[in-house]
Amino acid sequence: MAPAGSKKNILQRLDAGEIIIGDGGFVFALEKRGYVKAGPWTPEAAAEHREAVRQLHREFLRAGSNVMQTFTFYASDDKLENKYFEHVEEAEWAVQVLKTTNKPVAATLCIGPEGDLNGVSPGDCAVRLVKAGAQIVGVNSHFDPMTCVKTVKMMKEGVEKARLKAHFMIQPLAYHTPDCNRQGFIDLPEFPFSLEPRTLTRWDMHRYAREAYNAGIRYIGGCCGFEPYHIRALSEELAPERGFLPAASEKHGNWGSGLEMHTKPWVRARARRDYWENLKPASGQPLCPSMSTPDGWGITKGHVDLMQQKEATSQLQLKALFEKAKSSH
Amino acid sequence: MAPAGSKKNILQRLDAGEIIIGDGGFVFALEKRGYVKAGPWTPEAAAEHREAVRQLHREFLRAGSNVMQTFTFYASDDKLENKYFEHVEEAEWAVQVLKTTNKPVAATLCIGPEGDLNGVSPGDCAVRLVKAGAQIVGVNSHFDPMTCVKTVKMMKEGVEKARLKAHFMIQPLAYHTPDCNRQGFIDLPEFPFSLEPRTLTRWDMHRYAREAYNAGIRYIGGCCGFEPYHIRALSEELAPERGFLPAASEKHGNWGSGLEMHTKPWVRARARRDYWENLKPASGQPLCPSMSTPDGWGITKGHVDLMQQKEATSQLQLKALFEKAKSSH
Amino acid sequence: MAPAGSKKNILQRLDAGEIIIGDGGFVFALEKRGYVKAGPWTPEAAAEHREAVRQLHREFLRAGSNVMQTFTFYASDDKLENKYFEHVEEAEWAVQVLKTTNKPVAATLCIGPEGDLNGVSPGDCAVRLVKAGAQIVGVNSHFDPMTCVKTVKMMKEGVEKARLKAHFMIQPLAYHTPDCNRQGFIDLPEFPFSLEPRTLTRWDMHRYAREAYNAGIRYIGGCCGFEPYHIRALSEELAPERGFLPAASEKHGNWGSGLEMHTKPWVRARARRDYWENLKPASGQPLCPSMSTPDGWGITKGHVDLMQQKEATSQLQLKALFEKAKSSH
Amino acid sequence: MAPAGSKKNILQRLDAGEIIIGDGGFVFALEKRGYVKAGPWTPEAAAEHREAVRQLHREFLRAGSNVMQTFTFYASDDKLENKYFEHVEEAEWAVQVLKTTNKPVAATLCIGPEGDLNGVSPGDCAVRLVKAGAQIVGVNSHFDPMTCVKTVKMMKEGVEKARLKAHFMIQPLAYHTPDCNRQGFIDLPEFPFSLEPRTLTRWDMHRYAREAYNAGIRYIGGCCGFEPYHIRALSEELAPERGFLPAASEKHGNWGSGLEMHTKPWVRARARRDYWENLKPASGQPLCPSMSTPDGWGITKGHVDLMQQKEATSQLQLKALFEKAKSSH
Repeated sequence: MAPAGSKKNILQRLDAGEIIIGDGGFVFALEKRGYVKAGPWTPEAAAEHREAVRQLHREFLRAGSNVMQTFTFYASDDKLENKYFEHVEEAEWAVQVLKTTNKPVAATLCIGPEGDLNGVSPGDCAVRLVKAGAQIVGVNSHFDPMTCVKTVKMMKEGVEKARLKAHFMIQPLAYHTPDCNRQGFIDLPEFPFSLEPRTLTRWDMHRYAREAYNAGIRYIGGCCGFEPYHIRALSEELAPERGFLPAASEKHGNWGSGLEMHTKPWVRARARRDYWENLKPASGQPLCPSMSTPDGWGITKGHVDLMQQKEATSQLQLKALFEKAKSSH
Repeated sequence: MAPAGSKKNILQRLDAGEIIIGDGGFVFALEKRGYVKAGPWTPEAAAEHREAVRQLHREFLRAGSNVMQTFTFYASDDKLENKYFEHVEEAEWAVQVLKTTNKPVAATLCIGPEGDLNGVSPGDCAVRLVKAGAQIVGVNSHFDPMTCVKTVKMMKEGVEKARLKAHFMIQPLAYHTPDCNRQGFIDLPEFPFSLEPRTLTRWDMHRYAREAYNAGIRYIGGCCGFEPYHIRALSEELAPERGFLPAASEKHGNWGSGLEMHTKPWVRARARRDYWENLKPASGQPLCPSMSTPDGWGITKGHVDLMQQKEATSQLQLKALFEKAKSSH
Repeated sequence: MAPAGSKKNILQRLDAGEIIIGDGGFVFALEKRGYVKAGPWTPEAAAEHREAVRQLHREFLRAGSNVMQTFTFYASDDKLENKYFEHVEEAEWAVQVLKTTNKPVAATLCIGPEGDLNGVSPGDCAVRLVKAGAQIVGVNSHFDPMTCVKTVKMMKEGVEKARLKAHFMIQPLAYHTPDCNRQGFIDLPEFPFSLEPRTLTRWDMHRYAREAYNAGIRYIGGCCGFEPYHIRALSEELAPERGFLPAASEKHGNWGSGLEMHTKPWVRARARRDYWENLKPASGQPLCPSMSTPDGWGITKGHVDLMQQKEATSQLQLKALFEKAKSSH
Repeated sequence: MAPAGSKKNILQRLDAGEIIIGDGGFVFALEKRGYVKAGPWTPEAAAEHREAVRQLHREFLRAGSNVMQTFTFYASDDKLENKYFEHVEEAEWAVQVLKTTNKPVAATLCIGPEGDLNGVSPGDCAVRLVKAGAQIVGVNSHFDPMTCVKTVKMMKEGVEKARLKAHFMIQPLAYHTPDCNRQGFIDLPEFPFSLEPRTLTRWDMHRYAREAYNAGIRYIGGCCGFEPYHIRALSEELAPERGFLPAASEKHGNWGSGLEMHTKPWVRARARRDYWENLKPASGQPLCPSMSTPDGWGITKGHVDLMQQKEATSQLQLKALFEKAKSSH
């Protein structure tokens, strides 16, 4: 297995049995650093503040990521095209368009265990994407790691049951979202400016990496909320399987071992794996609840119509693109 | 008032009525980016990974900070010497040593409302520091913003009661720590690797900046846990008083206004100040408590002796330095 | 509709469209009063401390209950036989035995929305019970009110889909149990001696009564944790439909109206429905989580075998009884 | 030491070194049983529903209480006069009036560690009451057990420092109230109808009884929220010191030992002291916070004037009574 920079494309690497560690979400991380505006979330920082984007790239690489996504949304062999599909039908069209490019096609959906917004189950979604030509299928954003692992497991079961073959990828949030409904974290009242108390620790990331690996997922990455140290935790958990530690581990003691030299004996006592694995971290916020009620339920019919119209427009554009691609062959 | 880069030293700026926005803590931020090791917390990144340190500096400046602390611990007029004093006596010695340099002396303690580890009250601590020669006194690290504001208020009352004069500064954690004992967040079971759920939002920072300003504090900064967007929030809250917005506000809508164009109507409905001010954000972690019991209470006598011995050694070194400084005059 | 004491049997009353308010669980209430031992939960108090049992009966009647269950487990027309069935098969046998008595047969299961311990869905369970001869079907104990309403709704849908007819009854816990697994509250770590923080308020009971009524359930009662004031809340919520208030409402202001004369204005301000409906009551216990992980998952195979053996024995006894009953006809 | 029924009066029993276990609050318990109206909280049940009141008396006695308070507010040697004093001055007058009766005088205040509503410290309050003639001093209602133990400790220190002598009594709430301000639980938003999640378990009561005993308090009772099993827990914790178990312990296994025969092995595993001592019970209510903000801070000046006027009237009446009592000697 090889660190970032290997010449094989992503599909060849997965075929060869490599574990790919993805990067984290750029827009959220750059928003906190002052370079992307929440709301529009547009990526002009790539042009305006190259050094800031380059620095974040560098940090994810140091953390063990061996694939870099396209913050600027252009496409190339080693980079992945990312869109947020909540309906499998749209994703199928997109896959069929991409197939015409002769590049590896990875298709990820923003869905949870309840399936897409039309109620198509994760297993059925995956089968449809694989039949449409995707070689890598999975989920990205919208839900927390454990929910995403569960969803990809259902996808894998569907694909295997249909006697098809695919690689699986996962790019969850770095936020705990057990209270999400089908539409994911956008409906949580805390989105996007008060999600802090939901942030996963590095130890939560170890658990996620192990669960994902055990579920047979081999492209393991992150999305909104991931910082470089989260990616490093994935790399450290899977170091035995990958055969190497990331560069940034030079600045990280194994399971808190850096605390061994602390002056206070009770802090030294925290320099061990089981301490951090079993700790249930407090929020320090006793006036706050531990779960929220998602918004979006009590909305009026008018609003829903409006939304469906918007979505329909975007679907039509995509469909047109698809028809055009088809006709050009 | 002037943005960063003005030629006056910090004391002249405070004397002129300027509000100084500090930066955040470098070691915690750089640890998450993969450049500082938790435990030893040593600053070799300054030499090894200059571009990473420079980038973080740049981000804090963009966020509105108009003073830069010495990540590398060297001293100059515009930079501040930072040590972690939990005993006012040590700080007094340090102030007296620094006074021999003819530079402005700012003395901050790591204390809460209960005072220093010997039980000297915040008011008395402040009076002793001012009498020793400090022109700026306050608190840094160890406690959350509201606890720190409360402590500095007590310092200010003490100084005023003693008919002395000083400027006040504050550099709290970006973590909620209502459950701390006198020794601060190091004793919390979550320190330092599971503090995430305690992280303040940008809106918590608005509240802190306003409270600190109303308390008469004019050097308002941060410590461990602060990211650039937290500093930006301080700058935005105090923009009316300072007369300018920070550069990074070009990428930030006022009180969530960037959400106005969101496709979902219930997310658009969050684009307003009272929404974010009143939200009690959930942790998404129902198996976790909201407060912890600090460690360090049940420790054996032997441990305490050991600690006191260590501290005594460091005190002796400092005292020797102080005596030397005195004798050289 | 008629208060308790009417001459019709329970089936005739339900057929006539009456809403039956059940009582609460006797063993839990009497345990707190010092007359029943937790663990064995045997009902010898009925003989040893008649006045204590009679007093609790009196309180439930005053609270509006118009059916009294058999704390002493004897059978009669107006009293209901209660056993804790977690497998629909056992309940079917019991129904068939009871059918031989020519009395109304109510069959309730201790199941949640996931169905019985063999995975038979609530809808299928209900159909099997109705086909076996039960005229009233539903759930009792093991889960909180909202979970139980959801389960009975699924039962009702099953029965209607099968073009059968039945009345529906519900007797949930007075404890919030969102964290239960299929086996119910016994597996929660707090069972049975630290359930207090989960206790429903009277206002939670209003919500439950309304939901149950809207779901078409007409026998609405309670189980473990219900105190007389909880039953009174059910009666008060359904007073418009039943046409009368219970006797104990002479000592209860509508939606907190008794506070109108309080000396403190901010307490008087609580004398209104929307205040209590919207309040999210705090636990006052910041060191405690809001959910638990049920026990019983990590148990060894040996334990499970043992349990299944025990259950099999009890099933065999029941089956034998059933065979005997059948053969005697 | 002797169970309830001994011929000595309460002072003679305390002088003899006896531990007195008090009863719980009647009005809250009877409210839940349907006999007292919340708001006015008047005790007409004593006349209207004698059997209900008698039954509750019986239960507290069975639980080990060896003194019965006056639900009906009449006075006698074995019964205690209870009023809710939030100002030590009023209580002093009352003590002086009572001294004229030649009966033992117990004076309890509704205060916490911050002292009375005028800011008189617990130590000073206690000294004033003892000087006024009280032989037993302490606190009742308004705060949770641990807060009350802390307050009585401060009273005891004050009395000892003043070289006076007294017995100490305590009658806290059965609700966790760490979030109270000086005025106690009435200001909590949950008062009085949504306090359920704050209810102490029997194990919390063991801890309270032990702490109170260790603090030198010998009259240990309860107030609002106490049910008979809470009083039984006090009696069981102090059984070694008192030399007997209460009658109701015939229905209670020591530290959960009644679970030893449960069919599920993981429930049997709960039949031990350290399990219940260490359990942090969940609320099952993830949408709720763990603490509240007390009401009553933002009230207008007008309201406060009104309240002070009301209180002044009641003070005047009491003072008049006091003057009359004085003049009659």
